[in-house]
Amino acid sequence: MNIGMIRAAAERLEGHARRTPFLRSEALDRIAGRRVWVKAESLQHTGSFKFRGGRAALSALSPEARARGVIAFSSGNHAQGVALAAREFGAPAVILMPADAPAQKIDDTCALGAEVVVFDRSTQNRDEIGARLAEERGLTLIRPFDEPEVIAGQGTVGLEIAEQAAAAGIAEAEVLVCCGGGGLTSGIALALEAEAPGLKVRPVEPEGFDDVARSLASGGIERNNRTAGGLCDAILTPSPGEITFPIMARLCGPGIVVTEDEALDAMAAAFRHLKLVLEPGGAVALAAALNRPDMMEGEDVIAVATGGNVEAATFAKALERDL
Amino acid sequence: MNIGMIRAAAERLEGHARRTPFLRSEALDRIAGRRVWVKAESLQHTGSFKFRGGRAALSALSPEARARGVIAFSSGNHAQGVALAAREFGAPAVILMPADAPAQKIDDTCALGAEVVVFDRSTQNRDEIGARLAEERGLTLIRPFDEPEVIAGQGTVGLEIAEQAAAAGIAEAEVLVCCGGGGLTSGIALALEAEAPGLKVRPVEPEGFDDVARSLASGGIERNNRTAGGLCDAILTPSPGEITFPIMARLCGPGIVVTEDEALDAMAAAFRHLKLVLEPGGAVALAAALNRPDMMEGEDVIAVATGGNVEAATFAKALERDL
Repeated sequence: MNIGMIRAAAERLEGHARRTPFLRSEALDRIAGRRVWVKAESLQHTGSFKFRGGRAALSALSPEARARGVIAFSSGNHAQGVALAAREFGAPAVILMPADAPAQKIDDTCALGAEVVVFDRSTQNRDEIGARLAEERGLTLIRPFDEPEVIAGQGTVGLEIAEQAAAAGIAEAEVLVCCGGGGLTSGIALALEAEAPGLKVRPVEPEGFDDVARSLASGGIERNNRTAGGLCDAILTPSPGEITFPIMARLCGPGIVVTEDEALDAMAAAFRHLKLVLEPGGAVALAAALNRPDMMEGEDVIAVATGGNVEAATFAKALERDL
Repeated sequence: MNIGMIRAAAERLEGHARRTPFLRSEALDRIAGRRVWVKAESLQHTGSFKFRGGRAALSALSPEARARGVIAFSSGNHAQGVALAAREFGAPAVILMPADAPAQKIDDTCALGAEVVVFDRSTQNRDEIGARLAEERGLTLIRPFDEPEVIAGQGTVGLEIAEQAAAAGIAEAEVLVCCGGGGLTSGIALALEAEAPGLKVRPVEPEGFDDVARSLASGGIERNNRTAGGLCDAILTPSPGEITFPIMARLCGPGIVVTEDEALDAMAAAFRHLKLVLEPGGAVALAAALNRPDMMEGEDVIAVATGGNVEAATFAKALERDL
């Protein structure tokens, strides 16, 4: 896993992934007490950065493997990213989704032409179902984060941040990243190490699902007690990955933890001041910028807004906080 | 009023106005029955295209006039655009806002450092108050649409559309524009006439406020019976302008009218499929693309999403339609 793979992924994504905007609002600056820059990956195809990793992984397969198809496990955003990338290549995609995933994410994955197989987290073994399907059809598994080409694709967000920060005159800043298993976080950290060493990554997680923060603190891979039931469904992974953790341990600053209420407040702030729709798991980095000013340094902070795939009822909850 | 003024405005706005994204979602294509491209001016500074016209007008003033300051009448978006542009130049700005403007727009204009003077539409004469203040302080009036430098600034949206459409391989399409007094509509029409003659502008208005559609149909300036009380507060003007109407009459196709419910549905669609926050008046062009397929031609349609300055309660109404 190295910067060369990220640069190669960026070439393969050229003309396919969107270069997302780097936005700022003085109202957010006032709340945070420093300049806040938001990298709006919610505006990426399929509504999250996951399309980058999906497309990078699909484009790295041999034509024969692609023709047989791919399989992915996901509660939503990775599902949609892989589904769209597969359809763009005319490759079959099977997506295993937990029955408690947001209904909208299941619908939207189906609409992208994927074969969605729903399983019950409590009674069925996802890995067994997946292994059987992969075996029967010769499908290639695209892991959501612990997969080099996926990390390379997500790392292209970091290449863009390096360019956009330089254009804004920012040489030093902390880069807050909403973190599940660490694919995006480690990819961005590798990209910035090479392209903008004054930008340092800080993973951000919701309370109760702070496996990465605890792992960085202890120096070994720690697990969450639960992996479902939280509001921030996009980033509720059991533990950092075998590939992603050593990269984060080497390059990232301490993790930051925010509450679900703070994530909802950040969604309301992005609605009002940036006109962006963010999902709870895509808003925790902005929540950290707005609510943990004493945990970071410098005049600028960059928050990656990772996704916007949120159901209307959940978004309405965030809006109530602004009423 | 000519393309040279728009190009000059684009040079003065370089590095100040955002180049806003040109977005697409297959889900919207399916609803519309053709490819739908959305020019997201809701992501412009101050949440609407109005910053372009405000900055273009301020930057065209002499340093002496700028130092005395500017005055504008606006229910919201023009107010914020002029207020931010004035503050960037260190110029005083007085904004006259009707007391029934959305409270959030009044608050946000104050937050941008403008002196906000609120008047009662039914008992006070806006023009008299404005004339007195302008006279006393030597302020320059920045009209919201019937002002050449403002039209030039708004026309820079058209220059970007011409480039973005060409990059997407679109040579012919209708360009739907949310239309109040016609500043943006006429500016875009002039820009496209010069840069992308295969792109034709169609103004879109809400039911009951279709002065431009009726004016284009009759060939003379028609007025609305009422100029307040509608959901689409950003585009409720009494009639097209003396400068904007002849440009629209020469260059634009017939106007399109949508209902308020269709505007709310378009807001819900932009929320779900593009992750954009649009205000009702900023969503009527998208509403036309989604609901009036038989009124337009071609495989592609471009809808300008003009603004996102909407209160949470109004946005929640749109979300309810998606629940």
